[in-house]
Amino acid sequence: MASTISPPPAAAAALASIATPTTLVGQHQLYTRIRLATPADVPHIHKLIYQMAVFQNETHLFTATESSLASTLFNSPPFQSFTVFILEVSSNPFKNIHSPAFLPIERTVLVDHVAADPEAETFKSGVANEDDDDVTVAGFVLFVPSYTTFAGKPGFHVEDLLVRECYRRKGFGKVLLSAVAEQAVKMGFKRVEWSVLEWNVNAIKFYEEMGAKVSTEWRVCRLTGDALEAYGDANY
Amino acid sequence: MASTISPPPAAAAALASIATPTTLVGQHQLYTRIRLATPADVPHIHKLIYQMAVFQNETHLFTATESSLASTLFNSPPFQSFTVFILEVSSNPFKNIHSPAFLPIERTVLVDHVAADPEAETFKSGVANEDDDDVTVAGFVLFVPSYTTFAGKPGFHVEDLLVRECYRRKGFGKVLLSAVAEQAVKMGFKRVEWSVLEWNVNAIKFYEEMGAKVSTEWRVCRLTGDALEAYGDANY
Repeated sequence: MASTISPPPAAAAALASIATPTTLVGQHQLYTRIRLATPADVPHIHKLIYQMAVFQNETHLFTATESSLASTLFNSPPFQSFTVFILEVSSNPFKNIHSPAFLPIERTVLVDHVAADPEAETFKSGVANEDDDDVTVAGFVLFVPSYTTFAGKPGFHVEDLLVRECYRRKGFGKVLLSAVAEQAVKMGFKRVEWSVLEWNVNAIKFYEEMGAKVSTEWRVCRLTGDALEAYGDANY
Repeated sequence: MASTISPPPAAAAALASIATPTTLVGQHQLYTRIRLATPADVPHIHKLIYQMAVFQNETHLFTATESSLASTLFNSPPFQSFTVFILEVSSNPFKNIHSPAFLPIERTVLVDHVAADPEAETFKSGVANEDDDDVTVAGFVLFVPSYTTFAGKPGFHVEDLLVRECYRRKGFGKVLLSAVAEQAVKMGFKRVEWSVLEWNVNAIKFYEEMGAKVSTEWRVCRLTGDALEAYGDANY
């Protein structure tokens, strides 16, 4: 499976005449876009999080509702608190959308094979208008500012990242994570950090290729459920 | 080393007549307070972070300055972004401070032995007035909202927690972490999460006793330094 990521917007503008990659025999062009999520994306985000719970064998922990997401995800300006990027794909160029806080990142990807998307109808993009009815939500990343105390500077913590199954192995995970990294650099942030399950060796390899240091020396501690609620009555 | 944590404020009020623990022979009473940090605490926070870098053998990563901390830590209301609790100790009851966003948590602790504090002068509390000149900063915790996607609810991520060496093994770490957990419950948050170095077995034991699940199945991934900056030019 070969996948090629076209030059970024700035480079593409400088090379306008060759901005569209040459399609080889058997290859297909797929337009991709990363944009900020809006409340209209909540039903898709909800389904994507469920797919993540399935992937991690943790559906028993899945209690999120569209309502809990809608009431918690959009209370702060983008990048100041919880922030979601949506990955969209389309077989046609995207129409412009109004997004002053974040200029959408558009790429054209050449893929050897475009698998049929069994959930294309379910994941039809919420911001697509009628002319754009082949725009499909293919994945998301949810991230939030963190703090690197040793540097005395903010960073981003990536809470979750998912590319839907039929769009995997095309470099889209890298595109999503790179968008977060690019935004971090733009804001003068000094770290992008996330966790990966140790058995997810493909992801670990992929993160290391991206330049991340995957450390085995940290243990993740979590206080949740009744163990957390017990602290609410201050009788600790 | 015996240490006793007195009842929390609510319980203490109900039991006013016995609110002060009985001091056994050889024991000393230590007044403790957890309060929100203010910009006046920056020099102490800076020194505490350095002590944490020393403890973790990572002073080569320490680049924080008082200025970088001051310009990044106080830009949002408490609990909405980076938040610091300061732990103070005193041999006298605390004077009230004005803190509408967070009612300081005061406890009286009985300790068998109060070690001399070699840095008492350096860590004299910034909010102490002249009458309170024995108020000393003993530790801190820095935390920030995170997001539990499976629950569709916010949580807190604890970035760093430190109790100065001469105040360790008195339960103060638990007091600091419990204050974060209590605040999380108060805000309807569903998780408090942090990382611990695997060799820090004392801390792991202590976190487990607090009810935390310490997981070995996650790996922490970090993109920092040049590897991160490379994403700034969008040539990925």
